[in-house]
Amino acid sequence: MLACLVNGTPADKISATERALQYGDGLFETIAVRGGRTEFVDRHFQRLQSGCERLALDFGDWTHLQAEVEMLSGQHPDAIIKIILSRGPGGRGYRFMPGQSTTRIVSAHALPDWPDDYADTGVRVRVCNIRLAIQPRLAGIKHLNRLEQVLARAEWQDEFQEGLLLDYNGRLVEASMSNVFLVREDRVVTPMLSDCGVAGVMRSVVIDLAGQLGMQCSVDTMSADVLDEKIELFICNSLIGIWPVVEISGRCRLEIGPTTRKLQQALKVCNKTQSGEWQQ
Amino acid sequence: MLACLVNGTPADKISATERALQYGDGLFETIAVRGGRTEFVDRHFQRLQSGCERLALDFGDWTHLQAEVEMLSGQHPDAIIKIILSRGPGGRGYRFMPGQSTTRIVSAHALPDWPDDYADTGVRVRVCNIRLAIQPRLAGIKHLNRLEQVLARAEWQDEFQEGLLLDYNGRLVEASMSNVFLVREDRVVTPMLSDCGVAGVMRSVVIDLAGQLGMQCSVDTMSADVLDEKIELFICNSLIGIWPVVEISGRCRLEIGPTTRKLQQALKVCNKTQSGEWQQ
Repeated sequence: MLACLVNGTPADKISATERALQYGDGLFETIAVRGGRTEFVDRHFQRLQSGCERLALDFGDWTHLQAEVEMLSGQHPDAIIKIILSRGPGGRGYRFMPGQSTTRIVSAHALPDWPDDYADTGVRVRVCNIRLAIQPRLAGIKHLNRLEQVLARAEWQDEFQEGLLLDYNGRLVEASMSNVFLVREDRVVTPMLSDCGVAGVMRSVVIDLAGQLGMQCSVDTMSADVLDEKIELFICNSLIGIWPVVEISGRCRLEIGPTTRKLQQALKVCNKTQSGEWQQ
Repeated sequence: MLACLVNGTPADKISATERALQYGDGLFETIAVRGGRTEFVDRHFQRLQSGCERLALDFGDWTHLQAEVEMLSGQHPDAIIKIILSRGPGGRGYRFMPGQSTTRIVSAHALPDWPDDYADTGVRVRVCNIRLAIQPRLAGIKHLNRLEQVLARAEWQDEFQEGLLLDYNGRLVEASMSNVFLVREDRVVTPMLSDCGVAGVMRSVVIDLAGQLGMQCSVDTMSADVLDEKIELFICNSLIGIWPVVEISGRCRLEIGPTTRKLQQALKVCNKTQSGEWQQ
């Protein structure tokens, strides 16, 4: 950890009574900072706001939070900024009181040292054994209850770069730390996340880019059988950007397709614009 | 919070990089201490051990943990002792490394101030709108991913004492902070917890007591329709003991039955024995 602010004050510790620690009662965001620019910061804040509404998390200090993100990204121009919002310290059991003061933890971390060429040469993935539970009340938001992802990630060491996750209905949902897109018959499709999964910021960027490039793009439920079809497959998140998938372990090898390359190229252009948003 | 030990040292803060905070990656126990005696402490440790195995949590400091629980219960003879095991600080994303050092947080808290007579006169409950997700990989253990319970508890204020929880298959599983038992045709039954729910220490005590009292007792899947039948219903956990349910909101009123009273009586005797275990 390069730096950490707890409610605006430099600190590397939090109260042992924080509800994020006690129950995973809170939300988080992971923002890439490159060349001093916080990438897609507006979208991260929008998702955080939507998460607050879904969890009835009473948070209003958006101005302070934004200033803290800016401060840390100024000090660490190539880093990850992580925001955690916890529903404050204390409380009696699971019950929370309206107006309970939310704790904000903003920290800066070194960018991960993945080989750059995963974006070029693609990655190998496995289909995880663990299935995602169906829980519409928590689907889409980036909450702190992440044991499913921890258990998923424990299924391999370094032999794969990601693990695909199906839900208990056998549908393809996402990967352990990223979202999934596939291309078949010139259509870009990503799984619907109304039952489970995290609606990634990069996922929303890719959906928008596909639209702006004139591609047909849809969000749909997706049987795991699609993984046996002749498709282009890629994963994405705020840190990795877009990684093509070249092998699904024990299942098939895949080609990196032209649609994936076009989207990568568009993302590169988009990342270079001042605003962090795509300018056509 | 009356007192807190982090890895054996008095402290009221933990590292902001703890995995329990980041992902809810850990376990907890809530132990009642009354008259200086840690009730059913062996069963709490057994469940914790089983949770460690299920989450591949590499924890070996059982002797220290036990000494810390004893120390705090010595200082606070009528209190709640809460144990949290977190999969240590740091780590790169969801991945954890074998041998990562588990953090233990042992804290003492005032016993809750519920009116004593809930055990005598019974409680009113509602059936919660939120459903529990089916996740066999996490079922039974007392892990730190508790947003479902937090959202369940937010469904009422003081008008009920508990909320019953069904799963996404429409089965009765437990209540927000307690386990559920029902009695019909002289059989004691509690829901099977292989899909979701927490296998409470008091639940295991009640199952044993029922057996020792010569009652027919079984663990079974349970359709929510049982709540419309003529039954005895009670809830239990380590802090409340056994509370009879006298009303399910919008559904029915229930009588407190003789089986519930016998089990309460047996629990009282059992709580008074030196060992904390039932001596017939």
